[in-house]
Amino acid sequence: MQTNVGLLGYGTVGAGVAKIISLEDSLLSQKVGWPLKLARAVVRDLSGRRSFPAPPGLLTTDPSEVVGNPGIQVVVEVMGGLEPARTLVLRALEAGQHVVTANKALLAVHGREIFETAAQSRREVAFEAAVAGAIPVIRTLKEGLAANRIQSVAGILNGTTNYILTKMSRGGAGFAATLKEAQELGFAEADPTTDVEGTDAAHKLILLTALAYGVLPTLDDIHAEGITGLEPEDFSFAEALGYVIKLLAQASLNSGDGRLEVRLHPTMIPRGHLLAGVSGAMNAVMIRGHASGDIFLSGAGAGMMPTASAVVGDIVEIARLARSESGLSKPSLGWHSLKAETVKPASEIWSRYYLRFSVLDRPGVLASLAGILARHDVSIAQMIQKGPDAAAAGESVRLVMLTHSAPAKSIRAALGETGGKEWCRGPARLLRVEDFAQG
Amino acid sequence: MQTNVGLLGYGTVGAGVAKIISLEDSLLSQKVGWPLKLARAVVRDLSGRRSFPAPPGLLTTDPSEVVGNPGIQVVVEVMGGLEPARTLVLRALEAGQHVVTANKALLAVHGREIFETAAQSRREVAFEAAVAGAIPVIRTLKEGLAANRIQSVAGILNGTTNYILTKMSRGGAGFAATLKEAQELGFAEADPTTDVEGTDAAHKLILLTALAYGVLPTLDDIHAEGITGLEPEDFSFAEALGYVIKLLAQASLNSGDGRLEVRLHPTMIPRGHLLAGVSGAMNAVMIRGHASGDIFLSGAGAGMMPTASAVVGDIVEIARLARSESGLSKPSLGWHSLKAETVKPASEIWSRYYLRFSVLDRPGVLASLAGILARHDVSIAQMIQKGPDAAAAGESVRLVMLTHSAPAKSIRAALGETGGKEWCRGPARLLRVEDFAQG
Repeated sequence: MQTNVGLLGYGTVGAGVAKIISLEDSLLSQKVGWPLKLARAVVRDLSGRRSFPAPPGLLTTDPSEVVGNPGIQVVVEVMGGLEPARTLVLRALEAGQHVVTANKALLAVHGREIFETAAQSRREVAFEAAVAGAIPVIRTLKEGLAANRIQSVAGILNGTTNYILTKMSRGGAGFAATLKEAQELGFAEADPTTDVEGTDAAHKLILLTALAYGVLPTLDDIHAEGITGLEPEDFSFAEALGYVIKLLAQASLNSGDGRLEVRLHPTMIPRGHLLAGVSGAMNAVMIRGHASGDIFLSGAGAGMMPTASAVVGDIVEIARLARSESGLSKPSLGWHSLKAETVKPASEIWSRYYLRFSVLDRPGVLASLAGILARHDVSIAQMIQKGPDAAAAGESVRLVMLTHSAPAKSIRAALGETGGKEWCRGPARLLRVEDFAQG
Repeated sequence: MQTNVGLLGYGTVGAGVAKIISLEDSLLSQKVGWPLKLARAVVRDLSGRRSFPAPPGLLTTDPSEVVGNPGIQVVVEVMGGLEPARTLVLRALEAGQHVVTANKALLAVHGREIFETAAQSRREVAFEAAVAGAIPVIRTLKEGLAANRIQSVAGILNGTTNYILTKMSRGGAGFAATLKEAQELGFAEADPTTDVEGTDAAHKLILLTALAYGVLPTLDDIHAEGITGLEPEDFSFAEALGYVIKLLAQASLNSGDGRLEVRLHPTMIPRGHLLAGVSGAMNAVMIRGHASGDIFLSGAGAGMMPTASAVVGDIVEIARLARSESGLSKPSLGWHSLKAETVKPASEIWSRYYLRFSVLDRPGVLASLAGILARHDVSIAQMIQKGPDAAAAGESVRLVMLTHSAPAKSIRAALGETGGKEWCRGPARLLRVEDFAQG
């Protein structure tokens, strides 16, 4: 058995989905319990450059090879736009297929019709990728925080505008110049209207409102304002006042009158707040639940692979569900069998180290210490020496070193050796250092 | 129809679960599609103070009224400890009941047996509450990021130690004194051993490793070290070097040799990193997926209501599953029907405002402007005046004000009036200010 997936669209996101399903087939089998297979992808034009080459025979221009095809259980809509996406999604649900979509505009505008059709057909419409890319905000509102009265959801939901605002706050350039630079660097589309005027973030806000409150507003119901009117001096004034400017999407329940407030506008938020630290093309959401307190999620909000990560996560969930026959929707740990792989012994793990020595303050000690470290292949990146102070007994000084990466056993061996020297005044202290470099 | 829940234990977390199920019954019905009912709670002793009073008849001392009771579909284990928790959980699974647990020690030590029994019985063992409280990290690894090869998981998983480290980094006091203060303030247990020596965080790390890699290590397999050895001067040296010290749990796949590295130890991390900003009793996790990139989650990692939030979220998921008969596990938006509530008109929404005026630089203008704002009940919290500079045409100056909270319509009305004055040099600029005060 396997779950067959059909794509509507093979642009950037579609190619990302194809890449994950093709290259991570073994991983996905372990997660689902059987294979996922990419069966067909509908495109407008069979030629054209693709971010990940389509396997031979995958592409077709005929939507009916995916929608309504009884051999395909999951239809992934990544074509974008309202039509024909709406018609194809509705037709797939009516035919008994599950749908995964990354199309926020489609759901914000035609959500009511699509979600009702899904409920009637008893099929899933999953859309983790439609809001904040790989950040699992849909799942968090729908499942993780399901027990909470949601007091507020606040988010930075559009990477293009956050990139422009971050640049404007740092560089002092105007909106038009910053937009142009963002376009040149690929952070803004050639036609940036839906981003900079707030429509894209507003569509996402509509979906978050529906998840948090069970109310699906229209674009006309909410206050949605973009960033085109901002001027450089507003950024300097904001900074002087201790704030940063973000395009913040907010949905909240007013505790006074019990009514919903849903809005998107440039907002000054305190410099120390977690949302203020979200810079560049990142996205973030803060959810305040009555029981959970504040939950903050951040990460890449767009891009080929982060969006594909969310789409394929949804496909895995649906495939697990299809596999379950008698009540077990997924394995407890998410894997269908535990692996026997062993964990590396701690002594063999490499890390950077902070080493603090207490040594006699006399010539030759540093040379001797450095020599021992060098013999054990431990190389020093940075050093601080702190001279004897009034409180220190005798003539000992502190030598603090940050090393380059070394295995634990080399550090242990070196410290064993230094500990035996007569110039050593007590055991060395060590801490690991983690710089979170991209591996 | 309804889903009946039985509790094993009615301590702080159990009382929190009872509180949510009792007080949020309408909300939970809308999420599940039918009611959740708390049927029975097993305690050792029927007397005793409870954080939320148990409804009459709820408490019993006989575990068999919950475990193996065919009228109870979901067994919630919040008693803690290894036995009798292990025996009761296994017996519940064998009897066909689903299990929700907050017990990290139980799963870290007896996980293999429990997860295998769950798979054989085709029942769920859900444990979102066992790691990082209300933060949905289990779900994120199991579902949201299911399509990713996980490169690393790094987390601050113990609130007590993070509280102590935060205090030590700020106050300069020693470990023993800081621990004592934490105990007095309720941030550390009377017996803090499992927290400060790292066992609690190590148990959570074992579960995160299993979710990320499908490998369930034992405590002996991993390097786990607490914070008892840290001295004040290490915090000053760390600061001088641009780092902060955190008790960091890490699981990563070494790209060089393909082996797992799993470790918990005090770690120096760069001051600007998101994890460095996690202070006090907060928890946080950063997951690096090959497709998703870095996903950061933070929030309250413990406490009665955050933990109960995670437990009840798991109960909702299981109840939804039990409700599904033909493939639809849950409603697309998480609610069984959309509500017709209207969104408040933007003009009635209250907010703080940033107002930037360009006005003539002459006596009386400020008084006139302030008078107009006051007549519209807009009150000023802070003001900056920026004098005319060489570049400014004429004699205009900038007046920037932060207001206290006011409805949008009052601001609009006030700005309409100021705009008509002869001293007004161009339209005022406004931005909303959001301080994220607790409501």
